[in-house]
Amino acid sequence: MVQNGQITLYSSPYSPFSQRNQIALKQAKADYTDYVVDLSAKPAWFTEKVNPVGKIPALTYGGPKSAPENPPPEAAKINESLVILEFLADLFPEAGLLPADPVLRAQARLFINVFETKIFEPFRSFFFTPDGSGTALLEGLEALQARLPPSGFAVGEHWTNADSAVAPFLVRIDLMLKNDIGKYPQSEGVKVLEIYQGPKFTRLAKYIEDIKASPLFKDTFDEETNMKLFKNHPYTQRK
Amino acid sequence: MVQNGQITLYSSPYSPFSQRNQIALKQAKADYTDYVVDLSAKPAWFTEKVNPVGKIPALTYGGPKSAPENPPPEAAKINESLVILEFLADLFPEAGLLPADPVLRAQARLFINVFETKIFEPFRSFFFTPDGSGTALLEGLEALQARLPPSGFAVGEHWTNADSAVAPFLVRIDLMLKNDIGKYPQSEGVKVLEIYQGPKFTRLAKYIEDIKASPLFKDTFDEETNMKLFKNHPYTQRK
Repeated sequence: MVQNGQITLYSSPYSPFSQRNQIALKQAKADYTDYVVDLSAKPAWFTEKVNPVGKIPALTYGGPKSAPENPPPEAAKINESLVILEFLADLFPEAGLLPADPVLRAQARLFINVFETKIFEPFRSFFFTPDGSGTALLEGLEALQARLPPSGFAVGEHWTNADSAVAPFLVRIDLMLKNDIGKYPQSEGVKVLEIYQGPKFTRLAKYIEDIKASPLFKDTFDEETNMKLFKNHPYTQRK
Repeated sequence: MVQNGQITLYSSPYSPFSQRNQIALKQAKADYTDYVVDLSAKPAWFTEKVNPVGKIPALTYGGPKSAPENPPPEAAKINESLVILEFLADLFPEAGLLPADPVLRAQARLFINVFETKIFEPFRSFFFTPDGSGTALLEGLEALQARLPPSGFAVGEHWTNADSAVAPFLVRIDLMLKNDIGKYPQSEGVKVLEIYQGPKFTRLAKYIEDIKASPLFKDTFDEETNMKLFKNHPYTQRK
């Protein structure tokens, strides 16, 4: 399979979900357009022509290059960041977004599954509500760490979709914890940070360090802009 | 890729999650052992040697045929019914568990995503708690129906993993609604059933009929045994 037609990703510069797909598009060396959707004034054409659900990221594939406001009628429309990751792995099989071995592919998907079922919701509630549980967040991170090989990325030495799926969130968790940002009570944050930076999480810490050093991650994440957003967003302000 | 070693599925005869994988294994014409785990007295070796989380379905792959209680040490251990579906599609690419075209593969995964995000939770709460919402269940079914092509299965004329993923649940929903089984208030059930059997859902009704007529489904579902379970299970009894 080769790319046969235009690819447009509709994204937001602050969205970890979008970053999942931006990483994979870079890894695949895809020829694509990244179009930033203004979420504060979402254009009507976006829900009409790209994603009826109105959410980013969304991707169109196929047909000639066109203005993002007017995707080619024959273009396929794909939403959901994890479905887009699988799609890109299928479209660019030679790029190694997933390993070739079925067992390793399953391990990549199980790694993502641990994030989705054990980390995402504790992440959301710990940082963005006053009632989140630091314990649940740490348990989720521990479960993810338990799936990491002794060194390298999620399923080996090469970056895969498993890393693309979790990296945008892990780095945000890391930065927000270390900078005392979020709706969690400050005393709870101190406790969580101590455990997070302690001996229990040395493997995870190394993994996050490797993520941050990866060009795929660096090219798709503007730390300064994101830090400003975290600090000033209504979602993260303590009462 | 070809099957290279034993496959054992650890299942339960009543589990729709297990049935997802039983259907795919049959479709792939895999050489496998289906081992029923006694969930009421879960053996210690199951969590120790197969799935630390203790849940079915789980699958081991690789190594020589062995007693299910003693999977080969070199066997890969894969859990999560949807991850197992992807694994089987990768292991048996010629069996058509997913289409070859990346866009159709994405459509299959988006179909499953609608089930997971819009139907599963309303299904669970409507039938198994007294506070479920019939409206949420119907909205989820409508969203799924909207993704169906005019005829055939989820993404075309051929049965795929998209059908394997949703069929076990749709048929149970169908049977329980039509037989007034579940914790929902009886008056709510009458209202939901009227809409469900009305003109809004003719396409979904045809899809469920096609599912029930498919040998893949029939060979993996014992309606009589399941109906007995639905009727008598503590989870479905009205107060």
